[in-house]
Amino acid sequence: MSAVLDLEQQPYLHRQDAQGITTLTLNRPKQYNALSQAMLHALQTELDLIAKEEHINVVIIAAEGKAFCAGHDLKEIRSQHDEAFCHTLFQQCGKVMQTINQLPQPVIAQVQGIATAAGCQLVAACDLAVSVDTAKFATSGINVGLFCSTPAVPLSRNLPRKQAMELLLTGDFIDASTALQYGLINRVVPAEQLVSSVQVLAESIAAKSTTAIRMGKQLFYKQLEMPLIDAYRYAAEVMVCNIMDDDAKEGIDAFIQKRQPVWKK
Amino acid sequence: MSAVLDLEQQPYLHRQDAQGITTLTLNRPKQYNALSQAMLHALQTELDLIAKEEHINVVIIAAEGKAFCAGHDLKEIRSQHDEAFCHTLFQQCGKVMQTINQLPQPVIAQVQGIATAAGCQLVAACDLAVSVDTAKFATSGINVGLFCSTPAVPLSRNLPRKQAMELLLTGDFIDASTALQYGLINRVVPAEQLVSSVQVLAESIAAKSTTAIRMGKQLFYKQLEMPLIDAYRYAAEVMVCNIMDDDAKEGIDAFIQKRQPVWKK
Amino acid sequence: MSAVLDLEQQPYLHRQDAQGITTLTLNRPKQYNALSQAMLHALQTELDLIAKEEHINVVIIAAEGKAFCAGHDLKEIRSQHDEAFCHTLFQQCGKVMQTINQLPQPVIAQVQGIATAAGCQLVAACDLAVSVDTAKFATSGINVGLFCSTPAVPLSRNLPRKQAMELLLTGDFIDASTALQYGLINRVVPAEQLVSSVQVLAESIAAKSTTAIRMGKQLFYKQLEMPLIDAYRYAAEVMVCNIMDDDAKEGIDAFIQKRQPVWKK
Repeated sequence: MSAVLDLEQQPYLHRQDAQGITTLTLNRPKQYNALSQAMLHALQTELDLIAKEEHINVVIIAAEGKAFCAGHDLKEIRSQHDEAFCHTLFQQCGKVMQTINQLPQPVIAQVQGIATAAGCQLVAACDLAVSVDTAKFATSGINVGLFCSTPAVPLSRNLPRKQAMELLLTGDFIDASTALQYGLINRVVPAEQLVSSVQVLAESIAAKSTTAIRMGKQLFYKQLEMPLIDAYRYAAEVMVCNIMDDDAKEGIDAFIQKRQPVWKK
Repeated sequence: MSAVLDLEQQPYLHRQDAQGITTLTLNRPKQYNALSQAMLHALQTELDLIAKEEHINVVIIAAEGKAFCAGHDLKEIRSQHDEAFCHTLFQQCGKVMQTINQLPQPVIAQVQGIATAAGCQLVAACDLAVSVDTAKFATSGINVGLFCSTPAVPLSRNLPRKQAMELLLTGDFIDASTALQYGLINRVVPAEQLVSSVQVLAESIAAKSTTAIRMGKQLFYKQLEMPLIDAYRYAAEVMVCNIMDDDAKEGIDAFIQKRQPVWKK
Repeated sequence: MSAVLDLEQQPYLHRQDAQGITTLTLNRPKQYNALSQAMLHALQTELDLIAKEEHINVVIIAAEGKAFCAGHDLKEIRSQHDEAFCHTLFQQCGKVMQTINQLPQPVIAQVQGIATAAGCQLVAACDLAVSVDTAKFATSGINVGLFCSTPAVPLSRNLPRKQAMELLLTGDFIDASTALQYGLINRVVPAEQLVSSVQVLAESIAAKSTTAIRMGKQLFYKQLEMPLIDAYRYAAEVMVCNIMDDDAKEGIDAFIQKRQPVWKK
């Protein structure tokens, strides 16, 4: 228990900013970075701050230790097992996932180890994900009598239907290359390249026009819930807003003049 | 004709129950298990019974003979070719597919041979599907002047859009490994492993908490038709219901105590 | 400039009809077949004509030169950079894409070179696509400060979500085999087989019952936007209409009699 107490004195999340990129690192390695109420609260607080930070262009969600995130804290749930507590917990968890979705900045999961249950949901809820080749993924709640219903939300929107269903019904692990093939993640890399690979991806996005990236991320999810005809109409409006912005003028001029664009801000 | 008459004296479906798993076997091998009115009626009747059977946890749809299912019975259609008959037939077929979707128990297609037209729809409509490596799949209605419109419904929800469209427009066959890659099926195995492979999958699901599996299957399809925000809210509610159930309490306790859970029922 | 002027005297589109198959060839190779207002106008005009042509069964969109289509004409946009112009341009572009979607005839993209931004959208918006193995695809607008919002509409409906997002946020190229794996295209072939491969696909579809193909294409996209229960009901209605048509009667008779069907028209 001493190691745990010692860890409790550590912040739940580390935050590190560099050149427009924020890295949030889940910092409960001995608890496999479980999404306890305190961890969800720390994530929500930090994401709410970042949403207002104009100078942050990309967010990376990373994790300390061997596991990326093992989902909810089952001991916490069992020790406070009443309906009001669980209601609050799952609402809180759903809110963190939706905040990632609605965050102006793209969010990349940097997956260094296993991601299970709500931890797998966290990967699915991010805009992009890069994983080490040794990582494994499962929606393992069903093994403890708890179907991963909230993880099913982003999982069934990222993976083919039958593949998502198989994961949810069996609780079985898939390896990183299977996760890539199913669309749960974007890239698989050896462990020693994980940080640099995510960094390259984050820098590539951070180097783009902030206005364009923010408009685009919002447009992407919003139009997905529209009928095709409305989606095209809405996307055309966003295009017009985007193109009338100074960054697009500069970007097109730079392209025509064969030089690097210089974005406003 | 004698072989057919002989077969007509056989039931359209065999049903076998063992340890919470029901296997329904399409039993018109000489007609390639065509979805005639009688076959659809047999399926509907059996599925309606199973829906109410608390002790059944998983359903396997298997087939006798070389073909899994060749779709509708074209001879029957042509011999009774009026609008009222066809209307009833396709409503009946659509109802069977939706009953699979709404059945409390997960349904696994055990595909031992070709699945074409409404037979391919049957595979797509199941929650999971395992196929032999020699099986082939096609939505071949277009070859007889009949676009596979009802098969298009589950096909376009399981496969990438262009791949579904290609199958529907060309009527061409794809092999099992292509079907796996497209998301139409979950696993491909050699013929001699088909039954055991499906059995292992079914047993794995049957060993889970029945309450959790039933809540989860229903949640999965229901939330898929909701906007993201509503889906997360609904899923969180289902999570609370699930976690307040005795099975989840037992499951979490068993996990914490490192022992096998014992589900109620 | 002389080459450009010379080209300007050429039509924007070549149209060639043969045996029920129309090939529209984008004919501004030196401008990488950019979707200028004039090019979009030419496409819209031709597609509106084809929509009414009963004898045309399949449309191929091909392109002259090294690029398939490099998206919008950035020089044109920058030279007439006002909100009204851009509004008209993007509405016009969205209308072309929706016209492809609503066209009675299936449309195949024949991709002989790079397809970027709205050019990648054009590929995604077609019903089917065949590409040379050396082609590359990107939604590169983000590199000039312009998120590919309208391309995001068909891209996010054809590709897995995270893969679509990566393309849109990074502007990076993917090669043809990756595009195939993501579902953006149907087939990849060596350059020397492109025309013949598309021809075989187009002829296969053109040889089908026109009535069935047209009913089916419309049904496919319409039911995709419905809840499952409505989709099944609507698809069953379309099936009845289709089967009461003379082509289906002939198709089924021919099948039973083991002969080639002869479609009306």
